[in-house]
Amino acid sequence: MTQNSPFPLFEHRHLLGIQGLTPPDIETLLDRADAAVAISRQSQKKTSALRGRTQINLFFEASTRTQSSFELAGKRLGADVMNMSVASSSVKKGETLVDTATTLNAMRPDILVIRHSSAGAAALLSQKVDCSVVNAGDGAHEHPTQALLDALTIRRAKGRIGGLTVAICGDVLHSRVARSNILLLNAMGARVRVVAPSTLLPTDVDQMSVEVMQSMADGLKGADVVMALRLQRERMAGAFVPSIREYARYYGLDAEKLKAAKDDALVMHPGPMNRGVEISSEIADGPQSVIQEQVEMGVAVRMAVMEALLDPRRENKDADR
Amino acid sequence: MTQNSPFPLFEHRHLLGIQGLTPPDIETLLDRADAAVAISRQSQKKTSALRGRTQINLFFEASTRTQSSFELAGKRLGADVMNMSVASSSVKKGETLVDTATTLNAMRPDILVIRHSSAGAAALLSQKVDCSVVNAGDGAHEHPTQALLDALTIRRAKGRIGGLTVAICGDVLHSRVARSNILLLNAMGARVRVVAPSTLLPTDVDQMSVEVMQSMADGLKGADVVMALRLQRERMAGAFVPSIREYARYYGLDAEKLKAAKDDALVMHPGPMNRGVEISSEIADGPQSVIQEQVEMGVAVRMAVMEALLDPRRENKDADR
Amino acid sequence: MTQNSPFPLFEHRHLLGIQGLTPPDIETLLDRADAAVAISRQSQKKTSALRGRTQINLFFEASTRTQSSFELAGKRLGADVMNMSVASSSVKKGETLVDTATTLNAMRPDILVIRHSSAGAAALLSQKVDCSVVNAGDGAHEHPTQALLDALTIRRAKGRIGGLTVAICGDVLHSRVARSNILLLNAMGARVRVVAPSTLLPTDVDQMSVEVMQSMADGLKGADVVMALRLQRERMAGAFVPSIREYARYYGLDAEKLKAAKDDALVMHPGPMNRGVEISSEIADGPQSVIQEQVEMGVAVRMAVMEALLDPRRENKDADR
Repeated sequence: MTQNSPFPLFEHRHLLGIQGLTPPDIETLLDRADAAVAISRQSQKKTSALRGRTQINLFFEASTRTQSSFELAGKRLGADVMNMSVASSSVKKGETLVDTATTLNAMRPDILVIRHSSAGAAALLSQKVDCSVVNAGDGAHEHPTQALLDALTIRRAKGRIGGLTVAICGDVLHSRVARSNILLLNAMGARVRVVAPSTLLPTDVDQMSVEVMQSMADGLKGADVVMALRLQRERMAGAFVPSIREYARYYGLDAEKLKAAKDDALVMHPGPMNRGVEISSEIADGPQSVIQEQVEMGVAVRMAVMEALLDPRRENKDADR
Repeated sequence: MTQNSPFPLFEHRHLLGIQGLTPPDIETLLDRADAAVAISRQSQKKTSALRGRTQINLFFEASTRTQSSFELAGKRLGADVMNMSVASSSVKKGETLVDTATTLNAMRPDILVIRHSSAGAAALLSQKVDCSVVNAGDGAHEHPTQALLDALTIRRAKGRIGGLTVAICGDVLHSRVARSNILLLNAMGARVRVVAPSTLLPTDVDQMSVEVMQSMADGLKGADVVMALRLQRERMAGAFVPSIREYARYYGLDAEKLKAAKDDALVMHPGPMNRGVEISSEIADGPQSVIQEQVEMGVAVRMAVMEALLDPRRENKDADR
Repeated sequence: MTQNSPFPLFEHRHLLGIQGLTPPDIETLLDRADAAVAISRQSQKKTSALRGRTQINLFFEASTRTQSSFELAGKRLGADVMNMSVASSSVKKGETLVDTATTLNAMRPDILVIRHSSAGAAALLSQKVDCSVVNAGDGAHEHPTQALLDALTIRRAKGRIGGLTVAICGDVLHSRVARSNILLLNAMGARVRVVAPSTLLPTDVDQMSVEVMQSMADGLKGADVVMALRLQRERMAGAFVPSIREYARYYGLDAEKLKAAKDDALVMHPGPMNRGVEISSEIADGPQSVIQEQVEMGVAVRMAVMEALLDPRRENKDADR
C-alpha cells in the first residue's frame, strides 16, 4: 500500500485530532481504510507495510477496546507492537508524561499511540519525541480515530457523508468522541445536530457549528444517522446531571424515539454500551445498528492512519529538508 | 503441517470440550501434537502454519500457565497473538461476555481462546462469533486441552491409553480437569477410577463410567497412572469439606500411598501444585513424575488444536457449503 | 551478526552479573552493542538473528522501563517475546520461583529474563533451567545490563573507560545498579568513587575497591562521569536514613555541586528520576546529561547480550561436549 501507493500523500507526521485535517486529508485516510478492510477480511490478514517498525501503545487510561484495535492494526501491518499501561493515579501526571515520553522516544519507536486523561497530552508529547504520535483519546478533547471509523462506517453504508443529517445524542459535555465527530462531519459537509440536556452540553457549543436540540423528538426528526454516546458516569463527579433513570427516559435511544429518524437511519454507538441507559438492547442489536461494523472499521482506520503517517514518500520528503 | 497434511481432517470448527469428540478425532489431535513437540525442541521453533492469522486469548479468570501455553503455541505457529485479561469481578458477566465476544468478533480474529468462570461460557460464545473457539476452561465444566495434554503425556510414556488403569485423586467436585480427563480416558478405552471423599464428588458421578473409591489404598491398587488434582480452595467457600490437614493426610499423594500403584506408574498433576497438600515434594520431583512433560505437551497440544481448527481443507469445505 | 560474527565468541551461557566477566567479555558485548545501536536507528529496525527463538520476561518486580527495553530488544532480533508479570506478594517466594521456573523451562524457551526482589534469584534459577538466563535485577545484588549500558554510554561519549574518574552518588546501599557498575568500571580500569552518607553505604564497601567520600564537593572533584542513583525510598522502611529534604540538599546533584566535576563531565542517571531529589531538572535536562542516551544504549546492550548468549558458535560447542 505504501511504496507505490495509489493514494495521495498524507502530509502530516502526527494525528493529534480532526482539527487541522482538510477534507482531502480525511478522504485519503478513508480511502486507505477501505483498502485495509479487505486485508482483515482475508484469511491471511497481514501485510509487511510496517515490518521492522516499532509501535508503542502508551495508555494512561485503561481502554481494552481501543488498545486492542490499535494492537491488531499494528500487528496486521507487520509492526512490532509493545503495550504499556500506566496507572495515571500513581504518577504526578505532567512531569511523568514527559519523562515517560522522552524515555520511550530514546528507545526509537516509529509510532507512539497515546491515551491520557488530560486534554492536550498527545500534542504536548508530540513536541517531545521524534516519532509519529497518534492521539487515542486525550481527556474531553479529541479521539480522532473514533471519528474516522464512524465516518468510514457512514460512508460505506450511505455512500457519502456530505449532505447527511447526523444527530449526536447524550453526554456531549464529557465526550471527546462527540467533539471529534462534530469537527469531521462539519468538514465533510454533513449537518450536525446535538441532542442533550443543557447540563451535558459544553460551554463552547455555540462555536461548534451544530444545531442544539433538547428533545430527542426534535433532534432525531429526519436524521440519516443517530449516534448514541456513552454516558461517562465516571467523569460526572459533582456535576449537576440527571439521574441515570431520567437520562435513560429522556435521552436513551429506543424504538419509540428512533421512529422520528428516517426509516433507514443508521444507529451508532462508540461502545462499550450501557444497555438500557443510553441505548436499548432492541435498538443496539436491531437491523439499523452498525455498531459491530464500527468495531471492524476501527481496525481498518487505525491501519490506514499508521501506514499513512509512516508513508515512505513523506519520510523521504522530511529527510530532504 | 497443514496444506498437504498427512493427518486426517479434523472436522470440528470449535474445541469446546472432549464431549463430542470421537476416538479418531482424539487420535488425530494427538498425532498432530506429536509432530508439534518436535518443532518446540528445535532451536528454530517456528512454523508459518498460522502466519497472518489472529489469535485472541480472552481470559476472564487469571491463569498464567494456560495463557502462556496458548500464547507460545500461537507464536510458534506464526500467528499474531493478542492477550485480553478481563477482571470478571468488575463486569456483569452474562451480558459483558456476549458484548465482549461480538466486539472481538468484529475485529475478525481466526481463533478465540476463552477461559471463564461459568460452565458453558465457551459454547455460548461459539454461537456468537464467526471464528473458531477454544475452551481453555469454563467453570467446573471442561478443560479439553488439559485432557489432551495428559493423554499425550500418557501415550508417549506408555505407548497407549486403552487398557490402562488411571486413578484420578482428590477434589473431583470442582475440577474441570477431572471431568475432561474422564471423558477422554473413557473414550480411549482406559479404566478410570476416582478417589475422593464423598463431599468432593460431583452429584452426577454415577453417570460418569468411573469406579468410585474412597481410600487411596484401594484406588491406587495396580494403577498405571496416578493423577493428583489441585485442591481448589478458592472454590470451596461454604462447602462441607475436609480441612487441609485432613485432606493432605487421607488424599495427599506421597511415597507411602504411591506404593499401592504399579512400580512404573506415572505421577501426574495439572499444576500449579500445592506442595505438601495434594502431593508431596518427594513424589512431585521423583522419578515417576511426568509433571514437567505435561507442561511441554501442553504447548504441543495447543499448537495441534489450533492448527487443526484452521486446517485449510476444512475451511475450503466450509466455503463450499 | 551471529553466523559469521566478526566478534569473538562470548563463552557464557547466562548473564547473572558483571562478577565473573573478564574485560574481553565486556569489550565483546560493548562492541556487539555498538553494532546493535545502528539497527535501532534504521527505519527497518529488525534482524532475524533470533527468529524462531522464544524469550520470556519473568518479572517478579514491576519495571516498565527495563521490561520494555528487553521486550523491544527481543522483538528487533526477531524473537518471540512473552511477558510474565508475577506479583511477588501473592506467592511464597522461594518455592514458587523454582516451580515457576521449571514450568516455564518445560515450555522450552531459549532465554529467560528475570527480575526478582531476592539477591541470587537469577543464579538459583539458572541451575534449574536448560535455557539462558539474564539477570534483569535481583534484589540489591546485581543489574548487569544496566552496568553494560552505562559503560557503552561512557565509551561512546569519552572514547574509553579505563583511566576515567567516575563518581557514583547517593543511595549505594540499596543499589544493584551501583554494585554492578563498580564491578564493571573497576574491571575496565576506571577509578571509582562512591559518594554517600555512611547510613547509605553497604557494610562491605571496604572490599569494593572504591574511594568512599562523604561530601559531593570532594567526591565530584575532577570527575569525568557523575552518576546519580535513584533514591530507593520503597526499600528504606525502618532504615536510619536522611529525610528526603536533607538527602536532596547534601546529595542531590545540582548545578552548584556539578561545578566540582570536570567541565565536560557526563551526568548519568539510571531512571526513573525523582526530580528535585537526587537530581535537579536543570542538570537532568542540561547539556552534560546523557540520560536519554543511556535508555537508547539499554536496548542495544540487551540485543547484544541476548544474541551473544545464543551465538550458534557457542551452542555448537556445547553440543559437541
